[in-house]
Amino acid sequence: MAFAEFRPLDEKSLVEYIKYTPALASKLGDKFDDLKIREVGDGNLNFVFIVAGSGGSFVIKQALPYVRCIGESWPMTKERAYFEAVALKEQGHWCPGHVPEVYHFDRTMSLIGMRYLEPPHIILRKGLIAGIEYPLLAEHMSEFMARTLFCTSLLYHSTTEHKRAVAEFCGNVELCRLTEQVVFSDPYKVSKYNRWTSPYLDADAEAVREDNDLKLEIAELKSMFCERAQALIHGDLHTGSVMVTRDSTQVIDPEFAFYGPMGFDVGAFLGNLFLSFFSQDGHANQGNDRKAYKEWILQTTEETWNLFQQKFVNLWNEHKNGSGEAYLPAIYNNDVLLELVQRKFMKDLFHDSLGFGAAKMIRCDWMMWRIVGIAHVEDFESITDAGKRADCERRALNFARMLLKERQKFEGISEVVSLVRKLN
Amino acid sequence: MAFAEFRPLDEKSLVEYIKYTPALASKLGDKFDDLKIREVGDGNLNFVFIVAGSGGSFVIKQALPYVRCIGESWPMTKERAYFEAVALKEQGHWCPGHVPEVYHFDRTMSLIGMRYLEPPHIILRKGLIAGIEYPLLAEHMSEFMARTLFCTSLLYHSTTEHKRAVAEFCGNVELCRLTEQVVFSDPYKVSKYNRWTSPYLDADAEAVREDNDLKLEIAELKSMFCERAQALIHGDLHTGSVMVTRDSTQVIDPEFAFYGPMGFDVGAFLGNLFLSFFSQDGHANQGNDRKAYKEWILQTTEETWNLFQQKFVNLWNEHKNGSGEAYLPAIYNNDVLLELVQRKFMKDLFHDSLGFGAAKMIRCDWMMWRIVGIAHVEDFESITDAGKRADCERRALNFARMLLKERQKFEGISEVVSLVRKLN
Repeated sequence: MAFAEFRPLDEKSLVEYIKYTPALASKLGDKFDDLKIREVGDGNLNFVFIVAGSGGSFVIKQALPYVRCIGESWPMTKERAYFEAVALKEQGHWCPGHVPEVYHFDRTMSLIGMRYLEPPHIILRKGLIAGIEYPLLAEHMSEFMARTLFCTSLLYHSTTEHKRAVAEFCGNVELCRLTEQVVFSDPYKVSKYNRWTSPYLDADAEAVREDNDLKLEIAELKSMFCERAQALIHGDLHTGSVMVTRDSTQVIDPEFAFYGPMGFDVGAFLGNLFLSFFSQDGHANQGNDRKAYKEWILQTTEETWNLFQQKFVNLWNEHKNGSGEAYLPAIYNNDVLLELVQRKFMKDLFHDSLGFGAAKMIRCDWMMWRIVGIAHVEDFESITDAGKRADCERRALNFARMLLKERQKFEGISEVVSLVRKLN
Repeated sequence: MAFAEFRPLDEKSLVEYIKYTPALASKLGDKFDDLKIREVGDGNLNFVFIVAGSGGSFVIKQALPYVRCIGESWPMTKERAYFEAVALKEQGHWCPGHVPEVYHFDRTMSLIGMRYLEPPHIILRKGLIAGIEYPLLAEHMSEFMARTLFCTSLLYHSTTEHKRAVAEFCGNVELCRLTEQVVFSDPYKVSKYNRWTSPYLDADAEAVREDNDLKLEIAELKSMFCERAQALIHGDLHTGSVMVTRDSTQVIDPEFAFYGPMGFDVGAFLGNLFLSFFSQDGHANQGNDRKAYKEWILQTTEETWNLFQQKFVNLWNEHKNGSGEAYLPAIYNNDVLLELVQRKFMKDLFHDSLGFGAAKMIRCDWMMWRIVGIAHVEDFESITDAGKRADCERRALNFARMLLKERQKFEGISEVVSLVRKLN
């Protein structure tokens, strides 16, 4: 059964939908009698159903033409499901180990059927709040970022392929605009969506709005975000878009995907690890001072960048005679020059990542664009003592402001991490 | 009459075409008896017909699905006519005084009907070789560049409009690839299309191919060209794309147009003025030492940038409360910050322009991608003494190499112009 036009599904109509959709039915071994369906969308934008029976399981994600938790008064294109599905497939193609498989996509219904990430998978952010170490996290996330960013850039493919893909993802403009607003605009002006731990951080929030140097830098990053089609980026790679177990790391929810600057993804992830670091003091208690855990976070941050850099350069070397058109072999294949070029590329990407990471940190908490349910950043919210929370937040905010303005001065990630350690 | 499918026109079939195309026929006052048709395509890519009768006149430009002067063995999409027509209309909308009006476009036939730029209009490059001063050139070209670049950027329109337009012009990828090859690749490697004044410049050409620092810089510019959708650029804004009289300046041939870095247009024009400057010694003779003319060129170059900067910033101030989304009024409308932001923007654009200008200079002559008729750069070619020509060319090449590598160090155009004066 193909629905002729869009309609939101519920537990009941979903069963009918599955029965008539072979790609889904077969995943359940065509057994529907013991089917269990649970709606688990965390109340934000979409509906998410876990469908499981004795024959198999999957997840159904359906986008509505508005923001779910607000209602129809806040329209938002359901075409985002299309871009999410395309991005999931593309990222899954390049990095199948860290992206859930897509079983089915229905554009009319804005509906994606994909692998169910079974327990004990949890959202990474929740794991970080709980103080759980993930020994493979840096390895896996660096792998995901290096592979998806490298393989969708001009280092890997031709300008013909690149422009075709860029053009397609220009269609995801509504979601790009949302990022522009919440990351690059709202924190720097008075906005009804801004929120911070008041009154503790009132002066800090105002200081951000009055900081001309900061606004100069954020403008440069915004231009890069809007204009530079460097690679297919996830577009929302915070710790809430990653599901983890001790052995598995899965990147989900790329509905903000488009061709943008690589540093936006790398920075989002690093910046959110820093946020988690700064929030840990608020979670410390008599049983656990979180000191060791804070060190683990910093090590993981450092390792993530270092491994990312290493894997990215390895991919480059591996494909230096390939069809990527940014650095033609006939011009760049001498060892000295190639190393020179790679060092420059990685240095620029590092500084971009620090800038975008800082921007995401500034956005994420103190002046968070937020209506109940949208864009939870629990790291700090779960700290119940507001004064204590504000202290954590202020340290993170001051670090992020410094990083945004001074990012060009850092030579390597260890310098940044050392500074974070010192600031705390 | 609409032709159902593409066919190349000749003088005879063109008359039939015009008769049945009201938008064209009306431009001739529907009088066909005394019609004169002259094919004046300079033998490069396209057919160009001048159509004139007692009732009126126009130009017909038709693209063929291959490079005209080579033949069908070198295919090139005739869709370039579509992008040229769209760009002409867009640029004409923003700067009607300096862009020929489009009367008619037929996508099937890859055919544009537009204003005939009547005598004494000549190609600017020819005027520069002849030593003719154009007192309004800087004023007009700065106006064209400021208006077309500003009004198609995020300083003027929303990201929604921007991404739609970017996506459309991604379709002009074949022409972008041609630029990538001839400007950013061929000069830096052995290529059958490279050509220089041999044997005089053999060592210079080789030195370019061995200059790692230069190759590092050209890579950065190439990435910007391929990735940065800053504004709708003309894409080929050399002195051969401009027709002039003493009072009129008309920019033609934007078939390479796409959303790219603004500096590529500004640099192309400035770089080609510098080329003209360096070529003047080869045109000097007993009757005219060209000294005064060389000064006029340098003054014009300096004025072009200064007026461009001034007009661009004026447009920005004029539209600072408009719908442009790069710098939102709520964040950037304080005088100190706005000036800070504008100064940074213009400084970056200046350095981009110097870089792209240098790249165009390096390309244009010494290692010109060139088969008879494609990409004439007559400035130097018309110097018949090869030794003298090589001397001029070497000075220009050395300047361009220095400029590409050191562009960030220049604070303003007067510094660059002073250096050029000194080098000569």
